[in-house]
Amino acid sequence: MRVLGVDPGLTRCGLGVVDGMPGRPLSLVAVDVVRTSAQDELGGRLLAIEAAIEQWLDRFAPDTVAVERVFSQHNVRTVMGTAQASGVATLVAARRGIPVVTHTPSEVKAAVSGSGRADKAQVAAMVTRLLRLDVRPSPADASDALALAICQVWRGSAQRRLQAAAAAAGRERR
Amino acid sequence: MRVLGVDPGLTRCGLGVVDGMPGRPLSLVAVDVVRTSAQDELGGRLLAIEAAIEQWLDRFAPDTVAVERVFSQHNVRTVMGTAQASGVATLVAARRGIPVVTHTPSEVKAAVSGSGRADKAQVAAMVTRLLRLDVRPSPADASDALALAICQVWRGSAQRRLQAAAAAAGRERR
Repeated sequence: MRVLGVDPGLTRCGLGVVDGMPGRPLSLVAVDVVRTSAQDELGGRLLAIEAAIEQWLDRFAPDTVAVERVFSQHNVRTVMGTAQASGVATLVAARRGIPVVTHTPSEVKAAVSGSGRADKAQVAAMVTRLLRLDVRPSPADASDALALAICQVWRGSAQRRLQAAAAAAGRERR
Repeated sequence: MRVLGVDPGLTRCGLGVVDGMPGRPLSLVAVDVVRTSAQDELGGRLLAIEAAIEQWLDRFAPDTVAVERVFSQHNVRTVMGTAQASGVATLVAARRGIPVVTHTPSEVKAAVSGSGRADKAQVAAMVTRLLRLDVRPSPADASDALALAICQVWRGSAQRRLQAAAAAAGRERR
């Protein structure tokens, strides 16, 4: 199973592709950060993010796209841009019929570190360990995108097993 | 000058096209509300909004797209959807090289009614009067989209005159 994780943002949008399945070692396919300048107009910035994600979907053909769920507890300006970047990622994936899932930051932290309140350094350390990398991915947006992809590899499989179990139980009851 | 006003939203996205120039009567070209179901997945909803706006740009060929500037003082879930819908509108216009401008709700209210604190009914009443309509556009998203377009017809022209005056003054000083 191959997942593209997207840590959405206008100034820095983290993209990370991970291959894996639960109980097996995970592997890093690609990681990068798309940057757009705050000096540029919003439309041009969203176009650049759209182009980058289109290119990644072409190159890496993920089964699923996992996007961080945006909350508005942060700075207002930042949150609007983050929501718009996440909208573009969702739109581009939906256009190709690729399933889009969202995870909250605390779900992602809990998945990779065991604690929903882990800090950035802890998440980066676990991403480095789980993907058996020599150096920590940086900046944090890159490491967060990989953590999202890992979270989806694990949680997505659990969800599919639960759905399968529920379907099987339904068949037995009938 | 022809402006497409977009009152962004996932459940209801208001679209209104107005022709006009300052000091001349305004005229309504088209108004509608794009609706998507909260039962549907986000990707599908954003695709539907993208398709509708593409279609309006094809049919009405506006000179400018005016999008309401989103604030996060409202309900968190709503604001995220609104930001994402506004991002899609901005992206679609930018893809065609059509200038995108934003106005805050209070700028729009002040432009059409003289008061930045006008209520929805007052805005709808003024839109009806300014466009010489027989009935008020409804729902509020439709009337808000038209108010945005009217605001841009007037403010955009003022901005262009100011820019021209500044450029002329610059030439004189040199």
